[in-house]
Amino acid sequence: MTVHVPERPGVTALAQLSDGRSVALPEEVPVAVVHNGSTLAVMMATPADLVDFAVGFTLTEGVAAFDEMSDIEIVPQENGIEARMWLPEARIEALAARRRAMVGPVGCGLCGIDSLAEAARKVPEVGPGIALTGAQVTEALEALRAFQPLHDETHAVHAAGFYLPDAGADGGIVMAREDVGRHNALDKLIGGLARAGIDPASGAIVLTSRLSVEMVQKAAMAGVGTVLAVSQPTAHAVRLAEGAGMTLATRSRGALNVFTHAHRISGA
Amino acid sequence: MTVHVPERPGVTALAQLSDGRSVALPEEVPVAVVHNGSTLAVMMATPADLVDFAVGFTLTEGVAAFDEMSDIEIVPQENGIEARMWLPEARIEALAARRRAMVGPVGCGLCGIDSLAEAARKVPEVGPGIALTGAQVTEALEALRAFQPLHDETHAVHAAGFYLPDAGADGGIVMAREDVGRHNALDKLIGGLARAGIDPASGAIVLTSRLSVEMVQKAAMAGVGTVLAVSQPTAHAVRLAEGAGMTLATRSRGALNVFTHAHRISGA
Repeated sequence: MTVHVPERPGVTALAQLSDGRSVALPEEVPVAVVHNGSTLAVMMATPADLVDFAVGFTLTEGVAAFDEMSDIEIVPQENGIEARMWLPEARIEALAARRRAMVGPVGCGLCGIDSLAEAARKVPEVGPGIALTGAQVTEALEALRAFQPLHDETHAVHAAGFYLPDAGADGGIVMAREDVGRHNALDKLIGGLARAGIDPASGAIVLTSRLSVEMVQKAAMAGVGTVLAVSQPTAHAVRLAEGAGMTLATRSRGALNVFTHAHRISGA
Repeated sequence: MTVHVPERPGVTALAQLSDGRSVALPEEVPVAVVHNGSTLAVMMATPADLVDFAVGFTLTEGVAAFDEMSDIEIVPQENGIEARMWLPEARIEALAARRRAMVGPVGCGLCGIDSLAEAARKVPEVGPGIALTGAQVTEALEALRAFQPLHDETHAVHAAGFYLPDAGADGGIVMAREDVGRHNALDKLIGGLARAGIDPASGAIVLTSRLSVEMVQKAAMAGVGTVLAVSQPTAHAVRLAEGAGMTLATRSRGALNVFTHAHRISGA
């Protein structure tokens, strides 16, 4: 795979306050994911790890497999950044057919996915995944804090991390990505795992953000068995995780909350 | 304007945890905003105040004015909820022309708005708005907490409120809306203000969430001069507010941060 990435654009900027202080704020840039010259979606994102983002978004939207992606290129434009890649023509045809099947002559939305039917798309059932103890859940959620340099600087971005309990002395968060958007942080992580050859089913995903439907959909598309978060899920996300065989757990005010498939977490 | 709303669907659901406790979670439902039979966008939203949502989204996307909207109908479907309305044919033609002008043969995304150029759309300059003291900013941000019943129950939703400092004994938050999505909460508030005949320029918008580009775009489309939040803006949002003549201010760790157009806030 050829990957071309230009010089890293600024991910933060200093803002001058009225009282003379200055604070670091996260940048936020329109990023278009473009397959074979066609824009699938434009997301407002933190301009870092954009190859991971393009790979992850393409995976979690079910457009193509990692080994089908080629010639990934990050191209700054006047109004934003294009993340371009090339896919086999059959994938582009399948995407076009999926779009034609959607309701509404000018249907659009849900961050690139059209129509209520599409919004309710089935997610694949996840595999057996890994077993964790309640203590490991706590460890994973606390360990993520050390992998949030952009948040430490700006207090305004989300993070998604990957936790491997069985990595021996290196057990813990093995990869993390940050973004102003929580969906983007997760897509970047999933893309980063694919590029590093790490199977998402071998560990747990850890999130600083709320667990909405799209987060469960994306995690299920990546085949992750366990998703941990510091904030609560929506009811719809819990039902989706239940159906997909995925374990959802959070910690709130010191308590471990296991919402689905508790068999993967002992002592819960 | 005819408005038909069916029986209010559940906005929360009880989830049973593995240890036998149960917790209330917010519902999250695909909502399609449909103009003259065409779907503009599908958003995952809290199924409450959906007429406000449809009105606000139509306003902040610049599709039509409030007095052009008719026959608003909330229609539950198998996979979600349709929020339907009728607009003058000229508005539908303008929307179709806007879509045709967008880049990419299958362009889609940014919650219904396509292409990088469209993502960078200019926002209108806001009017003089109102003057606030630093103490009123603090009051507004603190007062919003009393208008978050869904958050009190679930700890997982955002709120947007409207603050009127000059309402005499009733000064304070005069309207607030909640949603699992922060954009949706703001659209619901803007739609609610339009339906109540309250001019958004007469007060300040108060948010529990981060100030991203879309939040500034929506507030500017509504003509609001001042946006207050408990969390930080992105750098892009600050530049957009600067250009639109909008005052952005936040409170973090006890400090008042005025990012743009500080003349509207005295003692800052």
